[in-house]
Amino acid sequence: MRQEQDFIGIKTIPPDAYWGVHTARAVENFPITGHTVAQMPELVRAFAFVKKAAAHANLQLGVIQATQAQAISQACDDLIAGQLHEQFVTDVIQGGAGTSTNMNANEVIANRALEHLGLPKGRYDVVHPNDHVNASQSTNDAYPTAVKIAAYFGIQSLLQSLACLRGAFEAKAAEFGPILKIGRTQLQDAVPMTLGQEFAAFASMIADDERRLRDSAFLMCEINMGGTAIGTGINAPVGYVDVVTPKLAELSGVPVKAAGNLIAATSDTGAFVDISGVLKRIATKLSKISNDLRLLSSGPQAGVCDIKLPARQAGSSIMPGKVNPVIPEVMNQVCFEVIGNDVAITMASEAGQLQLNAFEPLIAWALHKSLRHLAQACHTLQVHCVEGIVANHDLLGERIAASVTLVTALNPLIGYEKAASIAKAAIATGKPIADVAEDLGIMSRADMQKLLVAERLTQAGTLAAQA
Amino acid sequence: MRQEQDFIGIKTIPPDAYWGVHTARAVENFPITGHTVAQMPELVRAFAFVKKAAAHANLQLGVIQATQAQAISQACDDLIAGQLHEQFVTDVIQGGAGTSTNMNANEVIANRALEHLGLPKGRYDVVHPNDHVNASQSTNDAYPTAVKIAAYFGIQSLLQSLACLRGAFEAKAAEFGPILKIGRTQLQDAVPMTLGQEFAAFASMIADDERRLRDSAFLMCEINMGGTAIGTGINAPVGYVDVVTPKLAELSGVPVKAAGNLIAATSDTGAFVDISGVLKRIATKLSKISNDLRLLSSGPQAGVCDIKLPARQAGSSIMPGKVNPVIPEVMNQVCFEVIGNDVAITMASEAGQLQLNAFEPLIAWALHKSLRHLAQACHTLQVHCVEGIVANHDLLGERIAASVTLVTALNPLIGYEKAASIAKAAIATGKPIADVAEDLGIMSRADMQKLLVAERLTQAGTLAAQA
Amino acid sequence: MRQEQDFIGIKTIPPDAYWGVHTARAVENFPITGHTVAQMPELVRAFAFVKKAAAHANLQLGVIQATQAQAISQACDDLIAGQLHEQFVTDVIQGGAGTSTNMNANEVIANRALEHLGLPKGRYDVVHPNDHVNASQSTNDAYPTAVKIAAYFGIQSLLQSLACLRGAFEAKAAEFGPILKIGRTQLQDAVPMTLGQEFAAFASMIADDERRLRDSAFLMCEINMGGTAIGTGINAPVGYVDVVTPKLAELSGVPVKAAGNLIAATSDTGAFVDISGVLKRIATKLSKISNDLRLLSSGPQAGVCDIKLPARQAGSSIMPGKVNPVIPEVMNQVCFEVIGNDVAITMASEAGQLQLNAFEPLIAWALHKSLRHLAQACHTLQVHCVEGIVANHDLLGERIAASVTLVTALNPLIGYEKAASIAKAAIATGKPIADVAEDLGIMSRADMQKLLVAERLTQAGTLAAQA
Amino acid sequence: MRQEQDFIGIKTIPPDAYWGVHTARAVENFPITGHTVAQMPELVRAFAFVKKAAAHANLQLGVIQATQAQAISQACDDLIAGQLHEQFVTDVIQGGAGTSTNMNANEVIANRALEHLGLPKGRYDVVHPNDHVNASQSTNDAYPTAVKIAAYFGIQSLLQSLACLRGAFEAKAAEFGPILKIGRTQLQDAVPMTLGQEFAAFASMIADDERRLRDSAFLMCEINMGGTAIGTGINAPVGYVDVVTPKLAELSGVPVKAAGNLIAATSDTGAFVDISGVLKRIATKLSKISNDLRLLSSGPQAGVCDIKLPARQAGSSIMPGKVNPVIPEVMNQVCFEVIGNDVAITMASEAGQLQLNAFEPLIAWALHKSLRHLAQACHTLQVHCVEGIVANHDLLGERIAASVTLVTALNPLIGYEKAASIAKAAIATGKPIADVAEDLGIMSRADMQKLLVAERLTQAGTLAAQA
Repeated sequence: MRQEQDFIGIKTIPPDAYWGVHTARAVENFPITGHTVAQMPELVRAFAFVKKAAAHANLQLGVIQATQAQAISQACDDLIAGQLHEQFVTDVIQGGAGTSTNMNANEVIANRALEHLGLPKGRYDVVHPNDHVNASQSTNDAYPTAVKIAAYFGIQSLLQSLACLRGAFEAKAAEFGPILKIGRTQLQDAVPMTLGQEFAAFASMIADDERRLRDSAFLMCEINMGGTAIGTGINAPVGYVDVVTPKLAELSGVPVKAAGNLIAATSDTGAFVDISGVLKRIATKLSKISNDLRLLSSGPQAGVCDIKLPARQAGSSIMPGKVNPVIPEVMNQVCFEVIGNDVAITMASEAGQLQLNAFEPLIAWALHKSLRHLAQACHTLQVHCVEGIVANHDLLGERIAASVTLVTALNPLIGYEKAASIAKAAIATGKPIADVAEDLGIMSRADMQKLLVAERLTQAGTLAAQA
Repeated sequence: MRQEQDFIGIKTIPPDAYWGVHTARAVENFPITGHTVAQMPELVRAFAFVKKAAAHANLQLGVIQATQAQAISQACDDLIAGQLHEQFVTDVIQGGAGTSTNMNANEVIANRALEHLGLPKGRYDVVHPNDHVNASQSTNDAYPTAVKIAAYFGIQSLLQSLACLRGAFEAKAAEFGPILKIGRTQLQDAVPMTLGQEFAAFASMIADDERRLRDSAFLMCEINMGGTAIGTGINAPVGYVDVVTPKLAELSGVPVKAAGNLIAATSDTGAFVDISGVLKRIATKLSKISNDLRLLSSGPQAGVCDIKLPARQAGSSIMPGKVNPVIPEVMNQVCFEVIGNDVAITMASEAGQLQLNAFEPLIAWALHKSLRHLAQACHTLQVHCVEGIVANHDLLGERIAASVTLVTALNPLIGYEKAASIAKAAIATGKPIADVAEDLGIMSRADMQKLLVAERLTQAGTLAAQA
Repeated sequence: MRQEQDFIGIKTIPPDAYWGVHTARAVENFPITGHTVAQMPELVRAFAFVKKAAAHANLQLGVIQATQAQAISQACDDLIAGQLHEQFVTDVIQGGAGTSTNMNANEVIANRALEHLGLPKGRYDVVHPNDHVNASQSTNDAYPTAVKIAAYFGIQSLLQSLACLRGAFEAKAAEFGPILKIGRTQLQDAVPMTLGQEFAAFASMIADDERRLRDSAFLMCEINMGGTAIGTGINAPVGYVDVVTPKLAELSGVPVKAAGNLIAATSDTGAFVDISGVLKRIATKLSKISNDLRLLSSGPQAGVCDIKLPARQAGSSIMPGKVNPVIPEVMNQVCFEVIGNDVAITMASEAGQLQLNAFEPLIAWALHKSLRHLAQACHTLQVHCVEGIVANHDLLGERIAASVTLVTALNPLIGYEKAASIAKAAIATGKPIADVAEDLGIMSRADMQKLLVAERLTQAGTLAAQA
Repeated sequence: MRQEQDFIGIKTIPPDAYWGVHTARAVENFPITGHTVAQMPELVRAFAFVKKAAAHANLQLGVIQATQAQAISQACDDLIAGQLHEQFVTDVIQGGAGTSTNMNANEVIANRALEHLGLPKGRYDVVHPNDHVNASQSTNDAYPTAVKIAAYFGIQSLLQSLACLRGAFEAKAAEFGPILKIGRTQLQDAVPMTLGQEFAAFASMIADDERRLRDSAFLMCEINMGGTAIGTGINAPVGYVDVVTPKLAELSGVPVKAAGNLIAATSDTGAFVDISGVLKRIATKLSKISNDLRLLSSGPQAGVCDIKLPARQAGSSIMPGKVNPVIPEVMNQVCFEVIGNDVAITMASEAGQLQLNAFEPLIAWALHKSLRHLAQACHTLQVHCVEGIVANHDLLGERIAASVTLVTALNPLIGYEKAASIAKAAIATGKPIADVAEDLGIMSRADMQKLLVAERLTQAGTLAAQA
């Protein structure tokens, strides 16, 4: 066991621990969720990039020595490679604006750096968590920067998952291209379309969401490194911002740039609310698509029955043979969670006061969950559901043949009111619309059958033009 | 025109206005929504009850004179009778914790009281808005008390609308009692039930909600009259709480009682969050029921088609004869609004600081909208939709006859696994389950037909017991 | 009185009414809020642009006659000029996906067009609401297009209000430029800054929000005119999209363009969720700024007291002379409302099914409120609050002189741990830090006084560099 | 390895696994959060109670054999004792309405029961997961019942944590009883109170919340055991409800009772929305209290400074000696999370369709987090913050002596308007109010000093009565 001290007093630290006194206190103070920062590996990696870039800048500007910078960089590389993540032991929900996570990072990196220098843990006179690893930084610039970089990584993963899911819908759209079906508005039969058009629309919605997410990723790229405690830059050497920012971009591959007003950037969490809003948009859409898949596959006998989803597991502990749309259902739930996370992020953001927002750890955790769970759910939806969907060809064909909805196409010829009288009588009597039209003396059966070819009704054009 | 003065300066007031300088400033300060407090008539009436009860107590405890008390009471009676509501001209969203609405009430009542005394408006030396109408009060006790009483009135109206809606579902449950249909879980065919059972469940859910709302109405009855500015009771005479509280209960008919800790009660808006949560529960249920009605009536040809909703208006500007479930759709939207209001109320409540919550006006307005819109939507749902619903008897009967879902009842006889093999084969081949069972050598067609009587499967009991 | 008929039956219409049978039914069906579409004048104007552009395209493509097109255009111009808005009598919350508002618009325009042609209302054989005014359209393309154009107008207004508010903060930032104060993180004294820097940060945050809102306005510009009922374009003549879209852009001044996939665009409400998310971001920020203004002005004796807000009205009905931050308080409440609206919009969007979202009327109403109320609240915050803020110079100066926070600047010279020991002792004893440093033997009083010049600490740079 | 089969096909199961084919499929299908049901130990225990009670009822009603019942009960006892929880390997967010968790429980219990009978895993002919462990049940009654029991356990834990936290505030209220301070409304100085009154109000608010939570716990006690698949009771023997329900109450200690309408109860998740609303109320209050603690302790030099919170950790990686209110901050974040969870629960509840809500797993998980994190945060707030709070006696006393707020008490003697003129002049000049009153000729200095004794102003009573 070794002893470490801060201005509050002395703590005993286990000999294996790379973390130190500040982390030890945080573990005591925040026994909330049982989930630790180690469960956000992107954040740990992001912190390593931040600390490595800072070490580089500090060396260049004469704040730390070359041996210190070298050892710190090496320790950061270990974290980037996935080592020592289990040393990030503070709770994901923590007070202190991320100070504990930053302190945890400083301590782990310092002790690992000491190890690389062949020195025992705790030799902070050589590499100090605050004076050297954290040099020219504050939690208040290092932490939000790391959170943004981690979110950027998460966005890239989600974009990949969305693209794959979209691809699956596009493939189905091609496969279902010519299959006619009844389109529905407000759950009521509307006018004909093809099943391919329906699936192409799903793909198109996701493509829109991808575009918006890709375009919004820049929100995570405006950082406040060099602002230190409140954005004024106290204790950061002149010129630091211009060195550390491009270095961080280079190391992390994230195109970060310095915010225009570092004081504003230090307390402003609007970018997180914004990106969460974009994720909420995506969740809203994915939930809607999942709702549609569940609705279109309802049945197998007494439902909408347009399509069949692949059977993935027994649907019931009591009803034999029942198959349920469990994969869209899990997507729905992830989407509800994302929408809830957005409210939590919004409240946390609104609650920031004066020169800082103390509630960024919750924002980081909620954002992490939204990004990660959406990506995972997209993957299972693609692989375990969409790719295996089949159409109920026969039933769809029968319904098109019998559908009253085709009268809509008559408007340009006979007017809305006469068309309505045909529709009303056809529904009431169950007779084909061609028969009803002839009975009402509006149009001969033969003329109508010639005109109302469902295939033609799935695209722009009027019967008046054809007649 | 008359002139009035406060410690900020002089304002010119229109001669017809019963309101005065404080209201005039508020109108300038809060040009937000264009909706005025007059649009919350329950709140205006509630204020009149509060001020009348206070006048009574102030008279009894020697704080004001009999002529003052008499004139103030008479003015309050005018407001209770619905007069002068248009004088409540401050915006529904206003800063100041309701001070402007309270000042507005004080001024209108003072000037009306002066009128009853045969004096011109503005003779505040005789009846003063603050010294007499507001005597022994502060906005901080008068306003939340009035808001609670108004909410209590709104709750009673909503309870009536819910009861009528429930009655309509109960009548339909009786009407649809014996009609067999396929129950559905996760949108997939599950096991048989009756349409009557389904509608009785809707009624039962609403009955539960009514009970919970009725039981929760007491939340609006714990008031802080007599707490004055911060709950300590400064400037309220000793004994005031014990006089004013029962008087207010007597006048308003609302069983108000004094909170145990007036300081806590003055800043605590938990009761509003709580009652809004109960309204959200109701909204969640009414939205679910509306979703079900829309789903069950989807069609008329290519949907679920269990029931038909009454046609209330042409459903489309382009699709002739189309009928849409517009009444459940408006209920859905009101429910979404109520859920949004709950978030607004929650944020306003959380934002209260130290000895007061400055954001009660938003809480009052959001609560008013939730209560009022739900009541109105229940009424239109009852009268314009539920009462006119009819069943698709024939289709429901055909589906029961053909349904694979009846195999569930075989579990106690043949086990879950064999039953599953029958179900799987029946769905795959389209054959009746009795045929499949015989083909698989599990049970003779005749035995199964004897056993699987759908009517019996809509209640507790096992085939094993019958066999 | 005149009589009009739809496929449901006959209704009697008041002779003055420009609306007809479809509107009459909607008024009966949706007695929810008491607020009518007339209260959204941007939406009425937007509808007029849509109908005028459609009339133009329909004429060009031979769908309607020149006299019809001319009369319809003239009627639309009346609406654009602000006339007849009171004829939009359907409730803002309505079922039917906006069909009632579209029908209302069609009827009003048809009857006004007939009037321009010298014909009585109801002569629909000449100008028919559906066959002519609504030609080549459906509610499902006309309505969301109008809602987007109305939102675009609202965004422009909000941008103007934000710019003015930002200007007020910028002016104050200049005025407060050199005034030193203690910056605070987590509500605890942090390090020195200037009051000008603090106000410049407010301005900078708003500038960021303006940029994001301006950049996001394109979301309202992707429209689905020509998609008609479900996006397939049934009943729209070939080439219609290419004519109507640029015409609508030209007439309205909104740079609309056709969506790539009209089927997706017809059911997809993601753009509304997205723009509401951006408004929520703005609300979060404006609420945070309002919180800060209230906090910084808390007092006048027992609070933070950095600044004074202008007195706008008497703050209390009982506490004489009390002045409250009522203007920031009303902004807070508007922001909470906007955040609640965002949840309502999200739920409405998620609930869309298959080829349409039936809940767009709620989205339109919630978006209208968010845009309008934010703009109004920005205006009152600018004019009635920010422009009148003054600094408590003397107190701010005294605090800087006595502040322990300056020790932070010593880190690069003496290290974090020694600096912490100075801070701890200074707080405990109440002694100046220079004295404590000398007492502890860390640095002479004179050296420290020379180094720790507060002005220098409000910008980047280290004492090590200066030393 | 052993092989298991369902109607979809064969899966290979690791020999150590107590779970079987259904669980294996679920693990594949739902790779979402990485958190498994094992992380909800109350839910695992609740399931064991449910399955044990069912075994008891099944034995009594002749559905299963005594050896089966005995072995199943013994397996359940193992789970209740905390064994085998790691066998609950399905993701906490899962499709299928909890079927996978129920299947997982059935399989684990069946295999453990077989082990107790000396048989190898997989000998389902002897004890079958569905036919025996799940006999007379469906996921649709067993799962929500278990979730409610788990929530009930969680509520009891939270009640204990709340009571301890309240106790800490009560102790501080007693300690701070006589310390005078300025009460504040809208962040502005209002009227005098004692610090003890302020802390007693915190305690009182929590006591109210405890009462409401205790009274609302019954919401978790209305269960639908015996409803089986859709509430009709198919496959449950007659009389089953009356046996299983009291047995479950006896075993679990939770006073469960059968719902009146089992069909309604099977799809109705209103009770979860309701209890989450109550948790949200508590969160709102705890967040407000945390805000107040942070505000009151702001400083140490340039803030409100009424109290000091105990130093728990170094507050900054850069600012030496800085102490932050990290414990209230973590409570705030938990509260924001709870409010977000409430939205997720609301959406999941609203999305239920027809005879079931497929989204209960998310509800269970969100509710678990809200209950657990609140309890943990209450504990850390009590132990690490409230118990160590100290008052800034001297500063509070100085402020009372100098405060202008005491003029409020003069209203009943001199009227609101004259009192306002004193207040305004005192703030403007900085003079004591007694001097100003004499200067303005309103009252002699001596009279005022005699009247305005701050201690007397912290309770009901008027100076008029004393004069």
